Amino acid sequence: MSASAEIAQTPEPPYYAVIFTSTLTADTDGYDAMATRMVELAREQPGFLGMESARGSDGLGITVSYWQDVESIRAWKAVGEHRAAQATGKSRWYEHFAVRISKVERAY
Amino acid sequence: MSASAEIAQTPEPPYYAVIFTSTLTADTDGYDAMATRMVELAREQPGFLGMESARGSDGLGITVSYWQDVESIRAWKAVGEHRAAQATGKSRWYEHFAVRISKVERAY
Repeated sequence: MSASAEIAQTPEPPYYAVIFTSTLTADTDGYDAMATRMVELAREQPGFLGMESARGSDGLGITVSYWQDVESIRAWKAVGEHRAAQATGKSRWYEHFAVRISKVERAY
Repeated sequence: MSASAEIAQTPEPPYYAVIFTSTLTADTDGYDAMATRMVELAREQPGFLGMESARGSDGLGITVSYWQDVESIRAWKAVGEHRAAQATGKSRWYEHFAVRISKVERAY
């Protein structure tokens, strides 16, 4: 996914981070448009605090989104348009992926 | 920092993630060698579970390292060669950076 080249301005911990790591298949048709749309949509969700995203030349991508609490993560996961993107991602765009839900305890 | 283009194979949660986000200055002399060395050195530390790293074409870099507990993160932060790299990073290589220590509660 893509976002601007900026470090997210997050509040004092505690808050939550969703660490999404992926490698892509060769079939990336529609992927960029979906990623751009998901960033837009995430920003509109209650409890959204920020997002950072990078994909290196070796193909590994990391997107970290920051959320106020687990409830807001759960709600975002259930948004219809996001669910559709997740399903297409799994069946088509992502070769491998991992999602890790973590509680940020300290930041500096 | 650089690592292989692989998603880290981590154990069942809970464990810890250090999310390091950065943008670089124009002065990147010595940066790649340091980054490669730090990955090597991290892998030797007690409690190290894995690492994922990506820097996008827009310059934003994200490195996530995974650790067994906060004690192993603290010990890694204090390793002499790592401290020297952190100091040079702050004074020279990093334009901006953020470090977030988080506890991974769920993964799938």
